[in-house]
Amino acid sequence: MADLLVVGSVALDSVATPFGKVREVLGGSATYFSYSASFFTRARLVAAVGEDFPKEHTRLLESRGVDTSGLSVVRGRTFRWSGEYGYDLNDARTLDTQLNVFAEFRPTLASEARSVPYLFLANIDPALQLEVLRQMTRRPKLVALDTMNFWIQGKRDALVRVLGEVDVVTINDAEARQLADEANLIKAARAIAALGPRTVVVKRGEYGALLLANGGFFMVPAYPLESVYDPTGAGDTFAGGFMGYLASRDATDGATLRRAMIYGSVMASFTVEDFSLNRLVRLTPAEVSERYAEFEQLMRVEPVE
Amino acid sequence: MADLLVVGSVALDSVATPFGKVREVLGGSATYFSYSASFFTRARLVAAVGEDFPKEHTRLLESRGVDTSGLSVVRGRTFRWSGEYGYDLNDARTLDTQLNVFAEFRPTLASEARSVPYLFLANIDPALQLEVLRQMTRRPKLVALDTMNFWIQGKRDALVRVLGEVDVVTINDAEARQLADEANLIKAARAIAALGPRTVVVKRGEYGALLLANGGFFMVPAYPLESVYDPTGAGDTFAGGFMGYLASRDATDGATLRRAMIYGSVMASFTVEDFSLNRLVRLTPAEVSERYAEFEQLMRVEPVE
Repeated sequence: MADLLVVGSVALDSVATPFGKVREVLGGSATYFSYSASFFTRARLVAAVGEDFPKEHTRLLESRGVDTSGLSVVRGRTFRWSGEYGYDLNDARTLDTQLNVFAEFRPTLASEARSVPYLFLANIDPALQLEVLRQMTRRPKLVALDTMNFWIQGKRDALVRVLGEVDVVTINDAEARQLADEANLIKAARAIAALGPRTVVVKRGEYGALLLANGGFFMVPAYPLESVYDPTGAGDTFAGGFMGYLASRDATDGATLRRAMIYGSVMASFTVEDFSLNRLVRLTPAEVSERYAEFEQLMRVEPVE
Repeated sequence: MADLLVVGSVALDSVATPFGKVREVLGGSATYFSYSASFFTRARLVAAVGEDFPKEHTRLLESRGVDTSGLSVVRGRTFRWSGEYGYDLNDARTLDTQLNVFAEFRPTLASEARSVPYLFLANIDPALQLEVLRQMTRRPKLVALDTMNFWIQGKRDALVRVLGEVDVVTINDAEARQLADEANLIKAARAIAALGPRTVVVKRGEYGALLLANGGFFMVPAYPLESVYDPTGAGDTFAGGFMGYLASRDATDGATLRRAMIYGSVMASFTVEDFSLNRLVRLTPAEVSERYAEFEQLMRVEPVE
């Protein structure tokens, strides 16, 4: 079992879906990621919140063993995001973004964090992702990053630079097409791999996820859920399960990557069953194992006798 | 190996995609289905064409061993369909439909066809699908049907009646949602199964296909194609591979159904690589086996040691 560090956001989200709505609940990429990863390995989080950030949220992360010593509390208000989803839960519509203290976020790693073997650069400005990489005193065994349309459009040069230095990129399908400027997703994934990351993970929402590693593809379906309440955080929860499993095995070979894809899908499938981290908070390790077995069953083909 | 009969359309298609266009090429549900099935078993076709139908098309089907004795040549012109696709190849836009002789098509099975063990009712008026079923002198071991939005909207009662008498339905995702009046695809599949068919196959285009059988799900991804030229006929080609494999094994147990899903996906993945049946015409059985193995590889997860 190896340590895993995530640098990203901790936020208060307000979300409306056809199935209900919530106001100012715990959210943020580093939150979902670290909570999900905590089912597999020791997770540390680097992020910033304002003085208004409820202490119980920090305690919730700590109750899972997440190291929150990298969570700076700074003057001002916590990052807030507000969005809604229609019946097509694949598409979030952002209603409001208040960056607040997150606007000035300049991640600084504590000295013991500078040598973690597994590092996840969640969806933040690619210039900051690069700054974090520069702070590492030892090249991690595995660095992954996530990004989004905002940076692909506005900071493409910086993004391409940092992509050249990471091992894994996690990205959703529309953004993969946008980054590669290529409508065909398979070509797009190969084009992204050509930018540097030897492993490309494309998140496809209700259609599952795709792995391109060492030139070969692996596809995992989404779990057949009858009720999806809120897809917020699904991608970061996926990444937390994926990276958390890799760190727990301290391995990145092909077979381990494939199992990590399933663990990522397992964790994401729970997150979307309720708002915020509510379902994860009720989740037990036994449920994780059970759903992993169900995923295997969902994909199993017996050889022709 | 058991006989497989398909009742459906034989057409002349004009298709435009971003990658080219073709005029009055061989198409139709029974055509794609029987040609695809011919790689696995003895296929028979029941359909009607006009006097203008090129003889070489019939000879092409016969060259694969398809029994075309049920192909009636009647006075008038052959069914013509014209459509186009944008870069999102999941959505066909119909430009023109000329039913011609197909408007009067009343399928009548020859006496030896009335006892085939495997029957596929391709996408035609559900009232005709029911008429075909009524002509069977022996209940087939497996009856499957395909349908589309046009019948779901316009002939729902007849469709629900025939669904109550078949074993398998193949349907695309948007139509599954429409038929079940349910946005969640998993609930929609279960609702369709509740109408009668114990096996539901949902075709999801570039996202693969889903099987619901005996209450459990199986998901097969789409083959990671870098160039899709024309999706026309992919669904019927899938059904031909699926049913062809079941008939070839003369079995419908769960493990065989899963392999059949992969063979269906294999055949569909070839069809979309070129216009009309062009790619299938060049296809060899060795290529089919190779791609089946690639599908297994695409989905393989080694157990945790």
